[in-house]
Amino acid sequence: MRPFLSGLLLLGSAIVASAETLPLPQSLIALNSAEGGRMLLSSEANADYFDLGIHFTNQVHPAFCGPATIAMVLNALEVERPKSDMTLGLGLFDQENVFTPETEAVKPRAVLERSGLTLDELAGMFGAHSVQAKVHHAEDSSLDAFRSAATASIEDDVSFVLVNYLRAGIGQERGGHISPLGAYDAETDRFLILDVSRYKYPPVWVEAATLFDAMNTPDSDNDNRSRGYLLVSR
Amino acid sequence: MRPFLSGLLLLGSAIVASAETLPLPQSLIALNSAEGGRMLLSSEANADYFDLGIHFTNQVHPAFCGPATIAMVLNALEVERPKSDMTLGLGLFDQENVFTPETEAVKPRAVLERSGLTLDELAGMFGAHSVQAKVHHAEDSSLDAFRSAATASIEDDVSFVLVNYLRAGIGQERGGHISPLGAYDAETDRFLILDVSRYKYPPVWVEAATLFDAMNTPDSDNDNRSRGYLLVSR
Ligand SMILES: [Ca+2]
Ligand SMILES: [Ca+2]
Ligand SMILES: [Ca+2]
Ligand SMILES: [Ca+2]
Repeated sequence: MRPFLSGLLLLGSAIVASAETLPLPQSLIALNSAEGGRMLLSSEANADYFDLGIHFTNQVHPAFCGPATIAMVLNALEVERPKSDMTLGLGLFDQENVFTPETEAVKPRAVLERSGLTLDELAGMFGAHSVQAKVHHAEDSSLDAFRSAATASIEDDVSFVLVNYLRAGIGQERGGHISPLGAYDAETDRFLILDVSRYKYPPVWVEAATLFDAMNTPDSDNDNRSRGYLLVSR
Repeated sequence: MRPFLSGLLLLGSAIVASAETLPLPQSLIALNSAEGGRMLLSSEANADYFDLGIHFTNQVHPAFCGPATIAMVLNALEVERPKSDMTLGLGLFDQENVFTPETEAVKPRAVLERSGLTLDELAGMFGAHSVQAKVHHAEDSSLDAFRSAATASIEDDVSFVLVNYLRAGIGQERGGHISPLGAYDAETDRFLILDVSRYKYPPVWVEAATLFDAMNTPDSDNDNRSRGYLLVSR
């Protein structure tokens, strides 16, 4: 994931004078556009959108797309939450308390801050929280298998689907990224990515085939195995 | 607002063993329930839901319902955002950078951490960010005027509506609270409160009359003037 860090730091400083977020390619539809909102309201699968959406969060570090996604999903799964005085004795997962001695054994935070998480490491982080995560490398899957598994997961009340894709593959800047899926619209064959990098992009509707191809890309941090998706459940 | 701090610290420690969040009264409908989700999908006004929902955030301090709400609304208004390295040269408002020398002059952060914000101080904080905020104390308004102004604001693309209410008035624990409204459902005459205290409660659909009465309560931190609502626009 390192290329996206250096690449974006450059890009960011070049264009921020004129834009709050980066420009979206025509092929993507923002959730907070008139069309994107209508798509959610008429989407064929959206159960997970509500459970994840109330825990939507923004990654607080350039390499924390994984930890932000983990916090959202652990909250949505209603895994027992770390208590704190700042939450009045109740609790909530955030991008600090997702790191534990068990996750350090999977990938030390200091290393994660430099290189992010691969798909397999992401699964390991959930395992460290005693949550099941099944890895599906895109190269071992297919568009139809992904579409079917992802829509079923969006509709069920026991699992969530997370995608690890190359941003450049969907027309965004630019490297590997991780976020959960919230909904599926059948007419347009698009999934809603709840992108955790809100300063860069809004949540977007992306064509299933485009997303699959962006997952079916080699990750040099993972022995060139392809990216893919994760099904996470308690 | 001080009573809610001490009251909740007690309550929190009493019940957390059995619940992730506090129990909701029957009169409220959680957004992430089957019924609450259907209400959003068929709501008569929901434009602001999308702009606010992508910036949904959780208050990071027991007294920060105001700063969390301010961050959400400044992001949704697309006010120029503070840039940082952690956002790759882009920017996003959060519960740290909403505090500025100008907001210190409205209410110092150290004081806010003890007593939160009144409705009038909330408006002052937006003013300190050069954003217009019109105060409507409930005692000077009416249920009909509130419903009409709030639904219009939810639908327009220039303003957002924020409510300052007594939680006990809607059957929650317990003191004064601040959050934005996201949607309105006509059949049930309910507003969707995008509650920024996600460790306590999910976003809820509340009857307009119940919410108005909970706003029409005296705030001892504000010379016993009533709570109310704020219309915020650029
Ligand atoms: Ca549809
Ligand atoms: Ca699911
Ligand atoms: Ca309706
Ligand atoms: Ca509006």
